[in-house]
Amino acid sequence: MTSGLTATRPDSEFDRDIAVARSGDGFAGTFSDGWRVGGGINGGFQLSLLGNAIRAALPAHPDPIAVSAYYITPAVAGPVTVAVRPQRVGGRTATVAADLVQGEDTRLTVLATYGDLDAFPTDDVRTTAEPIDLPPRDQCVPNTMAPDEVKQMAPFTQRFEMLFHPDEVGWAVGKPSGIGQISAWFRLADGREPDPLALLMAVDALPPVTFDLGLPGWAPTVELSAHVRAKPAPGWLRLRHRTRNVAGGMFEEDCEVWDSTDRLVAQSRQLALLPR
Amino acid sequence: MTSGLTATRPDSEFDRDIAVARSGDGFAGTFSDGWRVGGGINGGFQLSLLGNAIRAALPAHPDPIAVSAYYITPAVAGPVTVAVRPQRVGGRTATVAADLVQGEDTRLTVLATYGDLDAFPTDDVRTTAEPIDLPPRDQCVPNTMAPDEVKQMAPFTQRFEMLFHPDEVGWAVGKPSGIGQISAWFRLADGREPDPLALLMAVDALPPVTFDLGLPGWAPTVELSAHVRAKPAPGWLRLRHRTRNVAGGMFEEDCEVWDSTDRLVAQSRQLALLPR
Repeated sequence: MTSGLTATRPDSEFDRDIAVARSGDGFAGTFSDGWRVGGGINGGFQLSLLGNAIRAALPAHPDPIAVSAYYITPAVAGPVTVAVRPQRVGGRTATVAADLVQGEDTRLTVLATYGDLDAFPTDDVRTTAEPIDLPPRDQCVPNTMAPDEVKQMAPFTQRFEMLFHPDEVGWAVGKPSGIGQISAWFRLADGREPDPLALLMAVDALPPVTFDLGLPGWAPTVELSAHVRAKPAPGWLRLRHRTRNVAGGMFEEDCEVWDSTDRLVAQSRQLALLPR
Repeated sequence: MTSGLTATRPDSEFDRDIAVARSGDGFAGTFSDGWRVGGGINGGFQLSLLGNAIRAALPAHPDPIAVSAYYITPAVAGPVTVAVRPQRVGGRTATVAADLVQGEDTRLTVLATYGDLDAFPTDDVRTTAEPIDLPPRDQCVPNTMAPDEVKQMAPFTQRFEMLFHPDEVGWAVGKPSGIGQISAWFRLADGREPDPLALLMAVDALPPVTFDLGLPGWAPTVELSAHVRAKPAPGWLRLRHRTRNVAGGMFEEDCEVWDSTDRLVAQSRQLALLPR
């Protein structure tokens, strides 16, 4: 239904599915069922589509720098509209509020600061965090090994290749490590290279880190904030989720995304409810 | 000018200064110059006052759980108004959008989820993060040693007692450690005990962690998200700021707040611009 206004690669299912077209005062798009996990569309993918609408609204500030998302009601396959309300448009950055709506229901409300990552300095990288240390890909555990019922429950998991660290995937066979960490190699299944919009999906793509604590089940996100710190280089990404504070029926989940040149390109933190 | 509608302790300057009164469709309060750092009111204190207005708007959901703040223009001493727009009010939590305005100018726009922390489970603490390890208070470096010009430039720093880890305060004498970490004991100068609203200020109370990297100067916050995970016990708090990704003219700053019972009561992350 959309014109592909902002699609960067027409043969990519990711680009096709985040495409939006101007519609009235806002933007219109469609959630494909392929990005569903259980009863709802994955929250990170929702951010990619909404983030694409913000990009279309801010031609001089094309890249998400900071995005904070509050999930209101579960999103389902079908038409969506996005409203973008600028709060401040400056030279270096612009800040907006945005809502993603289906019918009468707000699914997701967001505050975001956008800018042009190419205009930020690139020669001052003083990152002290260590790159995610993963075994070679042929020694990792691919998501294609998931049982058919998982693939049907979560078609989202078939939209990318994910190769898990073998020490952090015991939860898949009932032997979680108990540490609270899951790491994996990651790339889109259609071969599309990563960009800032894809990073918004990547930070929410791994299974909930609570799987590694022996707590399987849905962990609804209360809030997710993501920082995109650089445009990722082509190639595989490495993702890691960690939690350090499981308490009070909630947990925080930190995600790092490193690109193929060992640059820390995105950081996120979410607050989620423990599975009941 | 305000009625003290929500003040919990009339003899506390913090409670007096975050007080708000209903005004039209929103709330009115006043920023005291005492919470100023340089040319603007401290961002964390702005959150405490705005957070107090949200609390007044949501009587069944009194406590901030997750708050994401985007700073639009610098706030100054004087009258403020706060508008609160509920997005979803459920049984366990409520999510709102809120703006803090002075005259015609939005200073701060926020998304927040509130709830009743007393209604969350308290017997399931499985925190793996380690409490902040600080020397005894009499071996730490008090903020009262700051030069008079610092106290005048930043009267904010006189609103609390802050006792710095002696290994992480070299920046005060031109010898920053270069690690990117600052920790301190913390309590309000008026003796008021900590609560969730005070934690919103505490997560932004330390000097920018870039001081410890030899980069003094103002580091404007782009975005700050705070999670309040439990009501703090009475007594001293311990705060720690860390950064692990200084790059692209920006840095992330993570803060932890631990209470006197060794509970991790708040976590925050902000994205800020490096001092120019």
